Amino acid sequence: MIGLTNYAGVMESLMNSAEEKQPSSPLTNSWAKKQESSKSQKPNGVGGFVLVHAGAGYHSESKAKEYKHVCKRACQRAVDQLKAGALAVEAVAAALVELEDSPFTNAGMGSNLNLSGEIECDASIMDGKSLHFGAVGALSGIKNPVMVANRLLSEAQKGKLSAGRIPPCFLVGRGAHDWAVSHGIPPCPSDKMATKFSLSAYKRNKRKMELAEKMDTGHNQTKKRRQSSENENGSGCLDTVGAVVVDLEGNVAAAVSSGGLAMKHPGRVGQAAHYGCGCWAENACNMNSYSTAVSTSGCGEHLIRTMLARECSAAMQSEDAHQALLEAMQNKFISSPFLASEDRVLGGVIVLRCCRCVEAQPSQNFQGILVEFLWSHTTESMCVGYMSAQDSKAKTHISRLPPGTVPGQSLAIEGGVCRLMGVVE
Amino acid sequence: MIGLTNYAGVMESLMNSAEEKQPSSPLTNSWAKKQESSKSQKPNGVGGFVLVHAGAGYHSESKAKEYKHVCKRACQRAVDQLKAGALAVEAVAAALVELEDSPFTNAGMGSNLNLSGEIECDASIMDGKSLHFGAVGALSGIKNPVMVANRLLSEAQKGKLSAGRIPPCFLVGRGAHDWAVSHGIPPCPSDKMATKFSLSAYKRNKRKMELAEKMDTGHNQTKKRRQSSENENGSGCLDTVGAVVVDLEGNVAAAVSSGGLAMKHPGRVGQAAHYGCGCWAENACNMNSYSTAVSTSGCGEHLIRTMLARECSAAMQSEDAHQALLEAMQNKFISSPFLASEDRVLGGVIVLRCCRCVEAQPSQNFQGILVEFLWSHTTESMCVGYMSAQDSKAKTHISRLPPGTVPGQSLAIEGGVCRLMGVVE
Repeated sequence: MIGLTNYAGVMESLMNSAEEKQPSSPLTNSWAKKQESSKSQKPNGVGGFVLVHAGAGYHSESKAKEYKHVCKRACQRAVDQLKAGALAVEAVAAALVELEDSPFTNAGMGSNLNLSGEIECDASIMDGKSLHFGAVGALSGIKNPVMVANRLLSEAQKGKLSAGRIPPCFLVGRGAHDWAVSHGIPPCPSDKMATKFSLSAYKRNKRKMELAEKMDTGHNQTKKRRQSSENENGSGCLDTVGAVVVDLEGNVAAAVSSGGLAMKHPGRVGQAAHYGCGCWAENACNMNSYSTAVSTSGCGEHLIRTMLARECSAAMQSEDAHQALLEAMQNKFISSPFLASEDRVLGGVIVLRCCRCVEAQPSQNFQGILVEFLWSHTTESMCVGYMSAQDSKAKTHISRLPPGTVPGQSLAIEGGVCRLMGVVE
Repeated sequence: MIGLTNYAGVMESLMNSAEEKQPSSPLTNSWAKKQESSKSQKPNGVGGFVLVHAGAGYHSESKAKEYKHVCKRACQRAVDQLKAGALAVEAVAAALVELEDSPFTNAGMGSNLNLSGEIECDASIMDGKSLHFGAVGALSGIKNPVMVANRLLSEAQKGKLSAGRIPPCFLVGRGAHDWAVSHGIPPCPSDKMATKFSLSAYKRNKRKMELAEKMDTGHNQTKKRRQSSENENGSGCLDTVGAVVVDLEGNVAAAVSSGGLAMKHPGRVGQAAHYGCGCWAENACNMNSYSTAVSTSGCGEHLIRTMLARECSAAMQSEDAHQALLEAMQNKFISSPFLASEDRVLGGVIVLRCCRCVEAQPSQNFQGILVEFLWSHTTESMCVGYMSAQDSKAKTHISRLPPGTVPGQSLAIEGGVCRLMGVVE
């Protein structure tokens, strides 16, 4: 009933698999039609695939185990949902809740504190099937910001509000908090969301900042400001979390959640709440042969100004997934004209693309989904995990830049292939 | 010293002018190089062009005079700046301040009130030269939200903050307010920003909503919610304001400002604060022959999900500006797969594109900028104004959908051409 699942953790495997896949001849152009008739042709089996990240930034060896462990748990949560028949968008939200709940990630619990010592979170979610989007920015006092984003998405799908008002897709600050509570999402005292680690990081950063500002005072302030050290940025401060999922019907979804940069100004909203920048998901259609889902991590302002999630999604319609992502990261991010004045461009993406494929077997007609999944980053490291619902074996990996390369100017890129197979009845 | 300026208020004129322009042979490919050497080749004259809008929505005949008048004043403000040597980004901000200050527009003073009876504004600005962007969302208690967005943009251009922190490009809510005040922008009591008209509209809308909700109660609520009348939406509620400018050096800039939908949920952020959705500006470069600037108006959620400003900007690299905008509005907005579930897609854009052109004259070598400017909307009407710094004569116009066509399903499109000429020394 359930066909083989086959994936590998490094890009070489993706390329090999891409060669091997020839006999399966993906019927990419008939995807949209297949989607519509999915009820009658629904593959007989459970399936789906999830890829998560615990941020592009710097992951110390000492915490590698925790990062990997949370990625594994997040994969499991998504797969549990998929096995229970959930759509991709529900599964991706479940993965995010697990990632947010970890005190080790910069999202939900344990988020970076802002300049005022408060936690303000950004999160968004996109459903590739309905193309609906929900986002929250600078949200305080809610344990799982992604739940609010997801609720905004599902409420918007219900249609207009009373008196013909259009439901919001993006809420911020106090208004977002009150909307969440009025929709049954419980508030969480802010002090319960801070951790020992985030509080001590805040105190350390505050001292650093005060020292830096003392040194900067004087007539030469502006000049010094441009030259001020960037080394303090990036170490453990960029680990936004995210996930991308495909369900067995071939629907994709993506989500992202972040506590934002450490010592950010109150009210600052980063890419995680920004349409096209934090996440993107688009089912295949007449115009697009592949379904694609993307989630980003890194310096929010860089990811906003390059609209990296949407750019990577668009690039993934090219034939060679690896080459397409490589070029997108190089041309649309590191060398982007939008970041011409930046000397170090810090970010990472996880990407999933899929298309329906058919394989004739001696006894049965298999139909399934070919999933290509990749990650790429310009930061020192990026922690990822992935799992197929068909074997429930999580693989986790801390990807690092090649030795001798410079963060913000070089990139790492890896990935794999997974086949989700089911018998067509 | 100053060459001819030539523009017309209807699209026919743009098309005729496009035919007439053949002898001027725009040197589009050499634009980037020309930009770089603009100091040595700076045209000897004052110039620049501004196009503004006072919203796509419904402009009653009774208030047509006021709408036109504020557009005229906004054009004049931008042109005053251009004549004083300001760059496009400064001129576009000046136009927006005037549009925000009008009690007739839904931006700054006189903005729509939200569900709680408060004013929360969105605004953003983009500089086509530096490609920097600044935005504020759900901002209360500041008279000119665009000034805060502009200050964010200019502060970000100064480089990193103390301790290597990356400056924000997007601030919301209380944090945005406090940042503005700490950067010298004075607070404004919220009651001074409401007008008699906005307060009475709030009371009227509140009654309507309560009545609609009373009718909706019962087990059939969800179904009724989908079917609830949309007629109450759109009447005067969508008139976000915006402007696009090109200066004589050929730099473009765009800005947008909005009080948001009437009776919106507190914390709701619309397209005016959203990168790629509210405004877009991009100078010509190696990849783009034309400099383009776009500002949008209408239903924020529709404009966000279609990323209309950026889509129109990208479309304007096609040869025929009129055809390109027509197709973008039709395919990327009215028939967008992102709005497949919406029966009425409400919005409007103003667009400006330009390229350098050279005309050999008997005695002098003229060099100048060919500016094509257009507006298009699916709402009942859209109020626009435009002015060249070379003759300072404002033209204003209330564009309406063709008789018998349906708002949200049909569109109007018009525009003109202007040549900004200067002698190359």
